[in-house]
Amino acid sequence: MTPTMTVDIPPLAQQAIKKIQDLLGPHGWIDDPADMERYLNEQRGLFKGECAGVARPATTDEVALVIETCSRAGISVTPQGGNTGLVGGAVPVYSDQCGIVLATERLNRIRDIDPLNQTMTVEAGVILADVQKTARDAGLLFPLSLGAEGSCRIGGNLATNAGGVQVLRYGNARDLVLGLEVVLADGRTWEGLSRLRKDNTGYDLKHLFMGSEGTLGIITACVLKLYALPKYQETVMCAAADAPAVLDLFGRVRAAVGDGLTAFEIINRFAFDITVKHIDGCTDPFEHSHEQYALVQTGGMSKDLREVLEETLAQALEDGVIADAVFAQSSTQAADLWRIRETIPEAQKHEGASIKHDVSVPVSSVPDFLTRATDLVEKELTATRVCAFGHAGDGNIHFNLSQPETMASDAFLNKWHDFNRQIHDLVMQMGGSFSAEHGVGMLKRDDLTRYKSDEEIDLMRRMKQALDPDGILNPGKVL
Amino acid sequence: MTPTMTVDIPPLAQQAIKKIQDLLGPHGWIDDPADMERYLNEQRGLFKGECAGVARPATTDEVALVIETCSRAGISVTPQGGNTGLVGGAVPVYSDQCGIVLATERLNRIRDIDPLNQTMTVEAGVILADVQKTARDAGLLFPLSLGAEGSCRIGGNLATNAGGVQVLRYGNARDLVLGLEVVLADGRTWEGLSRLRKDNTGYDLKHLFMGSEGTLGIITACVLKLYALPKYQETVMCAAADAPAVLDLFGRVRAAVGDGLTAFEIINRFAFDITVKHIDGCTDPFEHSHEQYALVQTGGMSKDLREVLEETLAQALEDGVIADAVFAQSSTQAADLWRIRETIPEAQKHEGASIKHDVSVPVSSVPDFLTRATDLVEKELTATRVCAFGHAGDGNIHFNLSQPETMASDAFLNKWHDFNRQIHDLVMQMGGSFSAEHGVGMLKRDDLTRYKSDEEIDLMRRMKQALDPDGILNPGKVL
Repeated sequence: MTPTMTVDIPPLAQQAIKKIQDLLGPHGWIDDPADMERYLNEQRGLFKGECAGVARPATTDEVALVIETCSRAGISVTPQGGNTGLVGGAVPVYSDQCGIVLATERLNRIRDIDPLNQTMTVEAGVILADVQKTARDAGLLFPLSLGAEGSCRIGGNLATNAGGVQVLRYGNARDLVLGLEVVLADGRTWEGLSRLRKDNTGYDLKHLFMGSEGTLGIITACVLKLYALPKYQETVMCAAADAPAVLDLFGRVRAAVGDGLTAFEIINRFAFDITVKHIDGCTDPFEHSHEQYALVQTGGMSKDLREVLEETLAQALEDGVIADAVFAQSSTQAADLWRIRETIPEAQKHEGASIKHDVSVPVSSVPDFLTRATDLVEKELTATRVCAFGHAGDGNIHFNLSQPETMASDAFLNKWHDFNRQIHDLVMQMGGSFSAEHGVGMLKRDDLTRYKSDEEIDLMRRMKQALDPDGILNPGKVL
Repeated sequence: MTPTMTVDIPPLAQQAIKKIQDLLGPHGWIDDPADMERYLNEQRGLFKGECAGVARPATTDEVALVIETCSRAGISVTPQGGNTGLVGGAVPVYSDQCGIVLATERLNRIRDIDPLNQTMTVEAGVILADVQKTARDAGLLFPLSLGAEGSCRIGGNLATNAGGVQVLRYGNARDLVLGLEVVLADGRTWEGLSRLRKDNTGYDLKHLFMGSEGTLGIITACVLKLYALPKYQETVMCAAADAPAVLDLFGRVRAAVGDGLTAFEIINRFAFDITVKHIDGCTDPFEHSHEQYALVQTGGMSKDLREVLEETLAQALEDGVIADAVFAQSSTQAADLWRIRETIPEAQKHEGASIKHDVSVPVSSVPDFLTRATDLVEKELTATRVCAFGHAGDGNIHFNLSQPETMASDAFLNKWHDFNRQIHDLVMQMGGSFSAEHGVGMLKRDDLTRYKSDEEIDLMRRMKQALDPDGILNPGKVL
């Protein structure tokens, strides 16, 4: 049908695709190879997809009809939101079967907002930043916040249980949801759009679909929880001699402000310095260099938050826990401090090839993990530069590696698997996770098999078998 | 085997029970009818159970061996925690098969507490109040709080996804859990005791077991989330002319203190007055009577919380939203105000027979629900006295009815089904739930079938089939 698909499309599937084209109209179907490009590639270039076409339904009923048609014809479906994932979960890979992409981008309505109930009902294709803005316009907060928020879509955020910088305070994406609407593998629709904060009637189905990366059903709409907008917010960059000191600081700040602590990020010296070196607008706010930095954000309704934070940091300074601290004096200065944190991945590109790890350990084990992981890396390849940063307050470290300065990129990247194995073995020994927030997709399927118990893999397979017995939803992903 | 079981126990089952007795020893097995009584009855006397005996394993391995043995012999198992449930979910009902109770009371160890990670690993049989106390002793808060906390057990709280008075701020029981250990229907154990705040590796299994009321697996241990203990706490009883005014107050307080609002309860005049009339230590703090009352609790780390609350209530008074307000000036006074709220069910017993509804609607619909439900009741039986109270801040109303003063109790109770039907029909029309926090058990199985969509029932059946194909776990409950 199109040169993008290498396998022959059987006649039954061709008829089904024709039916989908007729159903969705000219805006609803793409099979021109050039137009399909952006649906087939992911940003890091790790995976290259192919498929028979991209369906772009505009309503839940259209999604249901597409899935029902595909189900009957044995066509597989890869759901795709903003295609910003980092593990290849949204890339259609159909080397031996006929499949399509189902893009949610036209499911883009805000269906309802209820400020007193603090809920909002939105369709899967709404861009995260638009969800945030709609909440803010109603005087409320939708706290999910991550680097890709300008282009990722809420359906994808829920399907992958996205994380981000405020998990510490508000939880992962799944924790921000009251209800879902899901099209099932056979084309039926489960209408579970509950706006209730309490409903104890039967099994919880929504949590099964969230985080399943489109392998159990297709999320078409959701009811999101909203929160009070903090009236007061503080952002401080602190400098410390080592990671244990950073965690000491974390314990102190949390004891002082409780859930007023909304973000707590750790940045090692290398990560910090490369942003200052490579990124426009990143400047070092400190007089001296330090081994570790902590970016601390507090938010809440109390005007004494600043005073409490100042006292806590003054005491930490006096006790030698931190070496210095810079308070943002304006929202512009706060944005400048956050730019250092947010642009580390961009800055890392200027330092040659990278090997990345999105891992987590219990918060109390973060310093120990950093020491042991750095030791492993040094033993494996001494001159590797560790670029470790992340959400220390929830135990999620992006333990990234930049190639030795004098090494060829290819030679370094050949060690991808070895490094992954060693770091993942370590986090699993420490009761951690080999994928804290990015999910499994294609990139970490082997890890899933390696690290999960037989019982857990078996339970997951039973869920897949129960909900998608023919395996048409996002084949080749997760399991 | 025992006179408590009316069906004949087949030889294979008798051998299996002998094996379980040998395995668990004298403390681990009860089949004396008198000793079994407390496992067979539930507090409201709605259901009377029978079974072949009560297994009391002391370790997860013992649970696994009991279940494996039962599974092979076709013996059903009703798991039971503190047996404080209100829907008959823990009552063993085996009219046509052989079954036992599996009591978790000897699984009572605190396995671990990690203050910096703010987690605690405990076994299923630990009493909720002991979980709370252990957290408090470590300077932290475990926020699940409900009437039965002195005798209910954490495993049962999670299996039923318990609610309580702080859901508004901290969520339901399921929201307080990071990991689970579960014995599956075939006797295998899923070790999912994650202490991680971020782990995106595969399907979320824990939420499936939580709220399934023991029908999908037996929770033997869990990792709980802990929170900062509030440094400052305020409790205020407010009086208002009607329910819309109470919800207006709710919106104002939440806008002022955000998540500093930890409980917001509504109490109607009848419910308020009967506690003052019947319960020792309950006194009316107001000079006059009012139609509605709101019990407001705030908590947090900021010392200005009291000032902000005072200002908000002063403004509400000036605007005519509330008629009066009484601040607790000590923890004793706070306990006195809470006693009014907590003793309503006890006070209701003094007013004759009750018909109860544990329902929820979106928070913004609470006033409308109260008006419409009261209208229905008056049409059905004019002199019925509405005893409506509950967690207005999360939309969960205990819409209870006390019999007309001049009516016979039996005649009133004969209307149980009619009232239930009308109230449940109403909440479902309003996008609500017929069981907000108590679950389904046996009491609300028919409601489940009546109100859930075909798709949802089908999905639930698939889960049950996938996880307990022989149906040995808590048969007759939920589905």
